[in-house]
Amino acid sequence: MNRFKITELGNDVFWLRDSERDHLVRVLRLKPGDLVVGFDNTGLEYTSVILKIEDKSVTCQILSTDQPDVEAQTSVYIVAGLSKGEKMEWVIQKGTELGMTGLIPLRAKRSVMHLEGSKAQERIVRWQKIASEAAKQSHRVQEPRILEVCDWKDLAERLPHGTQWLIPYEEEKTQRLASVLDTLDSKRPIAILIGPEGGFDQAEVTLAQDQLGAKSVSLGPRILRTETAAVATLTIVLAHYGDLG
Amino acid sequence: MNRFKITELGNDVFWLRDSERDHLVRVLRLKPGDLVVGFDNTGLEYTSVILKIEDKSVTCQILSTDQPDVEAQTSVYIVAGLSKGEKMEWVIQKGTELGMTGLIPLRAKRSVMHLEGSKAQERIVRWQKIASEAAKQSHRVQEPRILEVCDWKDLAERLPHGTQWLIPYEEEKTQRLASVLDTLDSKRPIAILIGPEGGFDQAEVTLAQDQLGAKSVSLGPRILRTETAAVATLTIVLAHYGDLG
Repeated sequence: MNRFKITELGNDVFWLRDSERDHLVRVLRLKPGDLVVGFDNTGLEYTSVILKIEDKSVTCQILSTDQPDVEAQTSVYIVAGLSKGEKMEWVIQKGTELGMTGLIPLRAKRSVMHLEGSKAQERIVRWQKIASEAAKQSHRVQEPRILEVCDWKDLAERLPHGTQWLIPYEEEKTQRLASVLDTLDSKRPIAILIGPEGGFDQAEVTLAQDQLGAKSVSLGPRILRTETAAVATLTIVLAHYGDLG
Repeated sequence: MNRFKITELGNDVFWLRDSERDHLVRVLRLKPGDLVVGFDNTGLEYTSVILKIEDKSVTCQILSTDQPDVEAQTSVYIVAGLSKGEKMEWVIQKGTELGMTGLIPLRAKRSVMHLEGSKAQERIVRWQKIASEAAKQSHRVQEPRILEVCDWKDLAERLPHGTQWLIPYEEEKTQRLASVLDTLDSKRPIAILIGPEGGFDQAEVTLAQDQLGAKSVSLGPRILRTETAAVATLTIVLAHYGDLG
């Protein structure tokens, strides 16, 4: 059954408008009588039947409301140093499937890709769409939020107080991720700081440790690309707390 | 320091030929006196200095030989149902970085991509190159082998006797990957069967269980794309045995 993000929720109906309506009508060519699933980012999903299709909206009758146990219990954020090409899109898509709660694009010192002003805003909109599509595809009921592009000095305020910060770092030789995970509180959010292609420099790691209380961790002996490190760390963290695998 | 796969090993020198030589000379533009690292897929790496550059080869003087502890202790293979587009390339690249031992492309029932004869052979050559490049980039000393495209009936013979087969399956609701990993013997190879875009069908899962003794496992409540499932399962398995994270 096709899944849609609800535009407006009524008592026993909901409406799909704009791109959701257009996708249903023009791409999927669904008709009144077809079943669809709607979700509204509150954790609920609504199995419904299409009632009517109009120029600007589609009306669906809710048949049943469920609260599927599909979201991770642990809130894990990826803070991703801005990277070139499709790496950010890849991390957003796979991160959403795996179960991340949100992603913050970070202007890291070695970031080759630069994003400011309106260009940054457009990119966030595009990235949020990718998260939305990936959430549907993976049957999530809560799409991850892609937050504004951020600098180091603003990071602490972007996530809830009490967030536990991890920074996978190639130069960390002793402290392994697995051992640190045993010391964290899974009821508090966890944020994973991932460097851009060139990695973080020592000053950034020190700043993260001092200002965010970040724990630097090793991912093992092999060097991982930035996008691989993001997805692998997220996977290991979620699996550790039983949210994956 | 740049890393190269050794073409021929001598007593205290080695030679680089063909694409390795060309990459060194034309792309990286290295010169006599520059340091390089050579590896030969036996687990050793050789820190060396370039002695001379000729039309067909580069001669390097070995300065020190090391056996870095960079390879995973657990042998994990990915058996990947043939998938479209770049998915196979991504899995090979990321799988190599993460530490897989090898990959077998599998003709699954729902595979949309078909590979036979000389086209299959050419694709294997290309995929092996991707594994080779990813091995260098991740500082591995043993590049994973990309085996011939395989059918279900030939799978059992392709991997060592004693291989333990896992099949992540969306319809598996009870047996979680984590609980199965506790029952495996990490000294024997582990093979992860990943379906193509449409997944495996029930008949294939039953065949894997009957003929290979495969254990079907759930990766959790969210639906993963084929390439995400491959990378996530590999990550969880390697991390479980301390080879990652």
